[in-house]
Amino acid sequence: MTANGRLRGRSLEPVAGNGLIDRRALIGRGIAFAGAMTGVGVTGAAAEPLTDAPWSREMGAVTPALQTPSRFEKHVVRTLSNPDNEFRNSHARTPHHLLNGTVTPNSLHFSINHSGLPDIDPDRHRLAIHGLVKQPMVYTVEALSRYPMVSRMAFLECGGNSAPMFSNEPLQASAQALHGLVSCAEWTGVKLSTLLEETGVDPAAKWFIAEGADSHALSRSVPLKKGFDDAMIALYQNGERLMPGNGYPMRLLLPGYEGNMNVKFLRRIKLVDAPAMSMYEARTYSQILPDGKAYRFYFLQEVKSFITHPSFGHSLKGPGFYEISGIAYSGAGRIAKVMVSADGGKSYAEAALQAPVLPKAFTRFRMPWRWDGQPVVLQSRAWDEGGNVQPTRAEFVALRGETKAPPPLLGFPNQHYNSLTSWAIDANGGVKHVYA
Amino acid sequence: MTANGRLRGRSLEPVAGNGLIDRRALIGRGIAFAGAMTGVGVTGAAAEPLTDAPWSREMGAVTPALQTPSRFEKHVVRTLSNPDNEFRNSHARTPHHLLNGTVTPNSLHFSINHSGLPDIDPDRHRLAIHGLVKQPMVYTVEALSRYPMVSRMAFLECGGNSAPMFSNEPLQASAQALHGLVSCAEWTGVKLSTLLEETGVDPAAKWFIAEGADSHALSRSVPLKKGFDDAMIALYQNGERLMPGNGYPMRLLLPGYEGNMNVKFLRRIKLVDAPAMSMYEARTYSQILPDGKAYRFYFLQEVKSFITHPSFGHSLKGPGFYEISGIAYSGAGRIAKVMVSADGGKSYAEAALQAPVLPKAFTRFRMPWRWDGQPVVLQSRAWDEGGNVQPTRAEFVALRGETKAPPPLLGFPNQHYNSLTSWAIDANGGVKHVYA
Repeated sequence: MTANGRLRGRSLEPVAGNGLIDRRALIGRGIAFAGAMTGVGVTGAAAEPLTDAPWSREMGAVTPALQTPSRFEKHVVRTLSNPDNEFRNSHARTPHHLLNGTVTPNSLHFSINHSGLPDIDPDRHRLAIHGLVKQPMVYTVEALSRYPMVSRMAFLECGGNSAPMFSNEPLQASAQALHGLVSCAEWTGVKLSTLLEETGVDPAAKWFIAEGADSHALSRSVPLKKGFDDAMIALYQNGERLMPGNGYPMRLLLPGYEGNMNVKFLRRIKLVDAPAMSMYEARTYSQILPDGKAYRFYFLQEVKSFITHPSFGHSLKGPGFYEISGIAYSGAGRIAKVMVSADGGKSYAEAALQAPVLPKAFTRFRMPWRWDGQPVVLQSRAWDEGGNVQPTRAEFVALRGETKAPPPLLGFPNQHYNSLTSWAIDANGGVKHVYA
Repeated sequence: MTANGRLRGRSLEPVAGNGLIDRRALIGRGIAFAGAMTGVGVTGAAAEPLTDAPWSREMGAVTPALQTPSRFEKHVVRTLSNPDNEFRNSHARTPHHLLNGTVTPNSLHFSINHSGLPDIDPDRHRLAIHGLVKQPMVYTVEALSRYPMVSRMAFLECGGNSAPMFSNEPLQASAQALHGLVSCAEWTGVKLSTLLEETGVDPAAKWFIAEGADSHALSRSVPLKKGFDDAMIALYQNGERLMPGNGYPMRLLLPGYEGNMNVKFLRRIKLVDAPAMSMYEARTYSQILPDGKAYRFYFLQEVKSFITHPSFGHSLKGPGFYEISGIAYSGAGRIAKVMVSADGGKSYAEAALQAPVLPKAFTRFRMPWRWDGQPVVLQSRAWDEGGNVQPTRAEFVALRGETKAPPPLLGFPNQHYNSLTSWAIDANGGVKHVYA
């Protein structure tokens, strides 16, 4: 802080209730944060001489071929629903409350496996494209590696992500437990359209069925139009070959569509004239609505956001400045706007969006905030470039219903939750999950 | 291929020597690759029934808390210059010839350590900002985590990257061995300007000295102007906390500047009126030129590109279509253009640049190519938005000199090589490093 400790600059004036500060305070030069940080850094006229810690006095460890996080970060892991690999599906959730930025490192990308992690030999794996095509084709990994490729950032989200939010009482759980089935990476591979141009398409084809090579043989029906849009046969994830839990050696990537449709270990694409009505489309992802009707083919992961800092599992160390930040994304395109409230939705201020804002990818939003030490309720709400808005909880529950707590984590109709998440900060800096 | 195997679409016509195809063949729909791929995929009228491999018939392995690459990718590692951790520096190089896209996964980000990997306890680590400031400050990791943050993609490159290219004879080595001391990640942290606004700056301050907490206590002088521009105290790398080899728990990030200046394990920033002339600026990175003069303060990593696919270590499996791709970057800003030649520089065609093209970050370029099976020489040449162009080898050697092969990997004056890399493909598909 400066010696006088006073605020400088108009933009540090609050712009919404409970201390939200204009996002322009984050942008460009000439906006001084000096004075906002009281109690954060420590003034140190006696900063010299610095003391030497043990690691400043001795040779360190060997530089390894594959580097891994510090031992002081061993709590930063995916949480597992099936650590003993019993004969059912396994979820591994991304620890959003411990991450920042927009890229999910490969080690922490979420993963759901229905019959364990297959150990696929890439030299023996094949992808067949057949059915209503003019010329069926079979591709090896090596063959696909010669085709024209594209790279793009894309989020992947399980349709069941945030299912605990269907509970009629707020579960006390972290952003990882509530929202850990979404991640974002740079994917590189061959556009499906490139391969379909090669096989040719029978005019009768309207859908394709994608099937995985693991023993679950997961299959999903996808509109052929998506196949000619931005569908990709992904071979690389953040630069390296796919992780086994993310579909090694190849997966279908359908940016913005429900994770389960992005078939991993992809071995077959069959062009057909009608959807197969496989288990996941006929049962799991056909959400039953309060009036007894059901959604059919609810593919899109709709506009959504949640605050990761601060969030459940954190505690604030006294009043003063904090940055509120979180993740926003939409399967329909780019995020256009994120509004943040510190008073449970009574007033909102617009958050800064970290550039570049890419379509169907994570956008990090940031909001400067001065906490006065009183209880507050933080929440975020996102809009996408299509004009879609994240629904309030009241709107969402009216349309989609809720269940008695605690809900099954992945039972229907608990799919495609995209309403707000609210974190209540108490006077001691503790964080609770609330509905507001 | 289509049944008739003919090329469709004007844009598959060659646009430069030895089979380079117009980059627009990669963009958008309606451009058919059918027919271009002869001999790549395998036509398969009998694609059904698919045979089941072992992994399609049994339960797979447990889903782990931290996922790691498939055992079939165990060759994808950093190569080490000092695997026994002898008392000298250690280099770990990124395997660019095995990667794609633009993000370097954290496990494979290059690293140079001068006294091994320090085991720093983040709760005990401190960053002091002192010297010609109005109010010295000391920051803990936890304190910095409350400040406004930014995220950005940025490449980091050792000033000695590509030093083997100073050899007067082309060394037969992979892109990893030649150029593996550059990587690219999304970095998240606090802008240094935010902290300097807090400490205040004495008008006499013109430089700052950054010092690391490892036992090497590496220190470098940086113009204060850079500190107020895009310098960052980075805390996160691709979403998670920094890798130990990349500066955990915090490093200085100076986008576009020589890697050595991006001080890791950062513990001190001292504002001063003149540079310290530490070892790295007075000796190592003051390149001696052929005329006996030397560069002083050669901070910028200049515009550069190299082809990663195909490259040394690969072999082409017969004539037909291939995608040529590689990496381009410039410390001065965005890549504007990459030209690719398949005839050793006699003719060039413009490569497609993968969007988004971000400043001071990797840009992946892609060039469609039909190889006729005859010997060719591939090379790439990049331009940045400032109009800077990657020099030809003749231009570069005239200005900077060369040494008798083999050169020391990191001795001066072998720094800041940014000329072209040429790969010769022989009639058997073998790849050699040549000067052209």
